[in-house]
Amino acid sequence: MSGTEISRLAGLNPVADLPKPPGLYWNVRAKQPVAYSVSMVRGLLDIENPTLARACAGQRRPSRCLLVVDAVVDGLYRKRFAEYFDHWQIEVTWQVIQGDEESKYLEQAVRVTEAMSQMGLLRRAEKVVAVGGGVVLDIVGFAASMYRRGVPYVRIPTTLVGQIDAGIGVKTGINHGHHKNRLGSYFAPETTLIDPDFLRTIDTRHVANGIAEIIKMALVKDAVLFDLLEATVGSITPDTLAGCGSAVSEVLSRSISGMLDELEPNLWEQVLERSVDYGHTFSPSLELLADPPLLHGEAVAVDMAICLGLAHLRGHLSKRDTDRALKLLQGFHLPISHPVFTQELLEKALADAVKHRDGLQRVPLTRGIGSVVFVNDLTPEELARALEFVDFWKATSDDELDGAAV
Amino acid sequence: MSGTEISRLAGLNPVADLPKPPGLYWNVRAKQPVAYSVSMVRGLLDIENPTLARACAGQRRPSRCLLVVDAVVDGLYRKRFAEYFDHWQIEVTWQVIQGDEESKYLEQAVRVTEAMSQMGLLRRAEKVVAVGGGVVLDIVGFAASMYRRGVPYVRIPTTLVGQIDAGIGVKTGINHGHHKNRLGSYFAPETTLIDPDFLRTIDTRHVANGIAEIIKMALVKDAVLFDLLEATVGSITPDTLAGCGSAVSEVLSRSISGMLDELEPNLWEQVLERSVDYGHTFSPSLELLADPPLLHGEAVAVDMAICLGLAHLRGHLSKRDTDRALKLLQGFHLPISHPVFTQELLEKALADAVKHRDGLQRVPLTRGIGSVVFVNDLTPEELARALEFVDFWKATSDDELDGAAV
Repeated sequence: MSGTEISRLAGLNPVADLPKPPGLYWNVRAKQPVAYSVSMVRGLLDIENPTLARACAGQRRPSRCLLVVDAVVDGLYRKRFAEYFDHWQIEVTWQVIQGDEESKYLEQAVRVTEAMSQMGLLRRAEKVVAVGGGVVLDIVGFAASMYRRGVPYVRIPTTLVGQIDAGIGVKTGINHGHHKNRLGSYFAPETTLIDPDFLRTIDTRHVANGIAEIIKMALVKDAVLFDLLEATVGSITPDTLAGCGSAVSEVLSRSISGMLDELEPNLWEQVLERSVDYGHTFSPSLELLADPPLLHGEAVAVDMAICLGLAHLRGHLSKRDTDRALKLLQGFHLPISHPVFTQELLEKALADAVKHRDGLQRVPLTRGIGSVVFVNDLTPEELARALEFVDFWKATSDDELDGAAV
Repeated sequence: MSGTEISRLAGLNPVADLPKPPGLYWNVRAKQPVAYSVSMVRGLLDIENPTLARACAGQRRPSRCLLVVDAVVDGLYRKRFAEYFDHWQIEVTWQVIQGDEESKYLEQAVRVTEAMSQMGLLRRAEKVVAVGGGVVLDIVGFAASMYRRGVPYVRIPTTLVGQIDAGIGVKTGINHGHHKNRLGSYFAPETTLIDPDFLRTIDTRHVANGIAEIIKMALVKDAVLFDLLEATVGSITPDTLAGCGSAVSEVLSRSISGMLDELEPNLWEQVLERSVDYGHTFSPSLELLADPPLLHGEAVAVDMAICLGLAHLRGHLSKRDTDRALKLLQGFHLPISHPVFTQELLEKALADAVKHRDGLQRVPLTRGIGSVVFVNDLTPEELARALEFVDFWKATSDDELDGAAV
C-alpha cells in the first residue's frame, strides 16, 4: 500500500512542518564523563576522621549505606566499622561475603544486588561500600554496575593487591565457565580509599601477592621503582606496610601513580596493547588450573618469569637484568615456575588471550627494565624455550643457594 | 616502624627523582565517547542489499557472527537470513531464544554469553546480532555488555515497540526478583537497523503495543505527531506499517527522532527528570502483576490514562485534550484501566519509582499536548481521584458507544 493511499484512507491533510524528506538515518553521539578519586588515608576508621563518612554519605545525616564486606575483614574490623558509622549517624546494612577466588561467581554478585533491593537503596543518594580484597571489590563493583543499570559505590581495599591494583581501576567482574573475569563491566567507583593500616592483618603470602603487581609496574614502566624494590626486599612486611614509612609510601604511591597513568587514557581498553597486561597473558589459565590454588599475584609472577625468559631470548633484556628480575621475584617468595605450565598450556592460554585481544597476541615484553614492547609472533617453540630457560635458571639458582648454605 | 627505620634496614639511598611529597591523592578523569547509528532500511534481507552484511562483518570476508534471534522471528525468517548470510560469506552461529516478558531473566542473558564463549567470539572484530522484539534486544544487549566487559552488537528490532523505542536507546536489562529491568546496563549498540517490512508479521495487538509508545512521544513533545495519529487511527495495520507509505513513515520517523532527541543529551540518565518516562511510573508494577499478562505498551497506556487524569485534575490539561488523548488510546484498542490498578497499588508503584528516581517522584505529566511538567507532590488522594476520573470517563464513553450502537 503506498503512502498516498494511506493518506487518503486516513483523510490526512498535509501538515506544514513535517520534515521532508523524513530522517531515515540518525547518528547518536555523546561522551560519558567519568571521574573518580583514589586517596591514601591514614586512620580511616579513627572516629574523628570524617573521610569515610563523607565518602559513604556525603553531607546527609542521618544516612544509610550498604556495606559489603569480606568475611575475614568483618571478623577483624566489624566493631571499629560499627562504632565509626554509629558516630557519624550512618545506618549500615551489613552484607558479609566470601573473598576467595572460588567465590567470585555470578550468584554472589546477584546476592549483593538483592541486598540493595531489600533495603530499598536509593538510586543515587545512598552508596554501596565494598570492603575487602580484589575479589570482593570486583564482585561488588559488578553488582553496583548492574543494579538499576548502575548505582554509586565506594571501594575500600584491605589487601595489598587491592590497594595498588584491583581497587583503583574501573574493571569489575566475576569468573564464569572456567574463565577468569569472563563477565563484568567497566564501572568506576566514586572513590577508592586506601588505608595501609589494613595491611597489618594480611599474611606474608598476601604481601607477596600484591608485590607481584608492584614488580609488574616496575618492570613495564618504572626502573626507579625496581631499584626501590631491590633495596627494600626483605623489609616489606605487614607491619612495615601498615606503618607506611617513607620507603613503603614511595613504593605504594609510585605503583598507584604508574597504574593510574596507564589506565586513565585507556579506561575502556579501546587500545588493546596494554602494558599493565604484562604477566597477564598466561596467568589466567594457571590461576584457574593450579591445585592447590595460586593467588592472583603468584600466577602473575610465574607468567612474568616466562615473559622475562621470552624477552631475554629475543635480546630485549640483558642477562643481568633478567637475573635481577627473577631474583627480585624470588626475593619476595614468589613462584617463578609451576608444574601446570607446560608448552601445551601456554599455547592454549595464548590462544585464549588472542581472542580477548581481538585476534592478535599483543603480548607485552620488557625491553630493558622499565619499558615494554608488544609482540604478535610468539611461536610454540619459543614458549618451550622460555620454559626451559626459567627451569634452568631456577635449577642453577637453587644450586647456588644450596652452595651458599653449605 | 618509621620510614627512617625502613630506609636504614633496607640500606636505601636517597633516589633523586622520587616525588616529594608523595602523591597521596589522585583524580582520574576521562570521557567515554559513545556513537551509534539508527537507520531505517527498506529490504534489509534483499540478497543484494549490503547494509546488513556491513553492519555484521564490516569489510572482512569470510567472517563470522553470533545471531541471537527470537523464536517466532526465527520461524518466519530463518531461510531468508540464512540465504542472505550465505551470499555474503558470513558464517552464522544461531541462537534461538524466547522473546516473551517471562523469558527476560538473568539465565537467558548468561546463556547468550555462553554461546559467545563457545564459538570463541573475537572481542572486537566479530559481532553479536540481536533480532527480535524489545525483550530479545534487552537480553542480548545485556549479555553483550557483560561478556569480556563488552563486545560490539547490532540490533535488528522486528516489532513496532522495538523499532521506535526499545531498539534505539542504550538501555539493556532483565527482570529480577519481581522487578522490571532490575539488573542491566547502559550499553550502546554499534548500529540499529530498522526495516518496517518485519512489521507485516506482527499481530494487531503488537501494533497497539508499539503505538502506545508513539502516543507517549506525541503527548510529551510532539503535538503534530498527535494530530497525525488522530488522522491515521484505524489505518495503521501490520500491512500499512510494512508498506511504510508517507504517513506511516512520518509517524515512525517523528517518533524515533523525538525519542533520540530526548535520549542523546541524557544517555546515562544523569538527569532523572525524563519526559520519556511518561507512562512509566506505575506501569512496571502493573506489567509484573497483570494476569493474564499485559504487553509493555498496554501497561504504559493504562499508566498514561491515570497521568492524563492527574494532569486534568491539576488543571494542566483541558477537558478537550484529555478526551482526545483518552480517545486516541481507545482508538488504537489500548486499555485505559485495569482491575490491578487500585489506589494501594498506585501508591506502592510510586514508592518504587521514587527509589528509582533517587528519592523524588519526578512524575512527568502533560501540560497541554506536546509538553511536560514534572511533579513531586502527588498525594494518595489525588491518585484515588485520578483513578475515579478514568473509570468515570470510561463508563461515560462506553455509554456513548452503547448509545451510538443503539
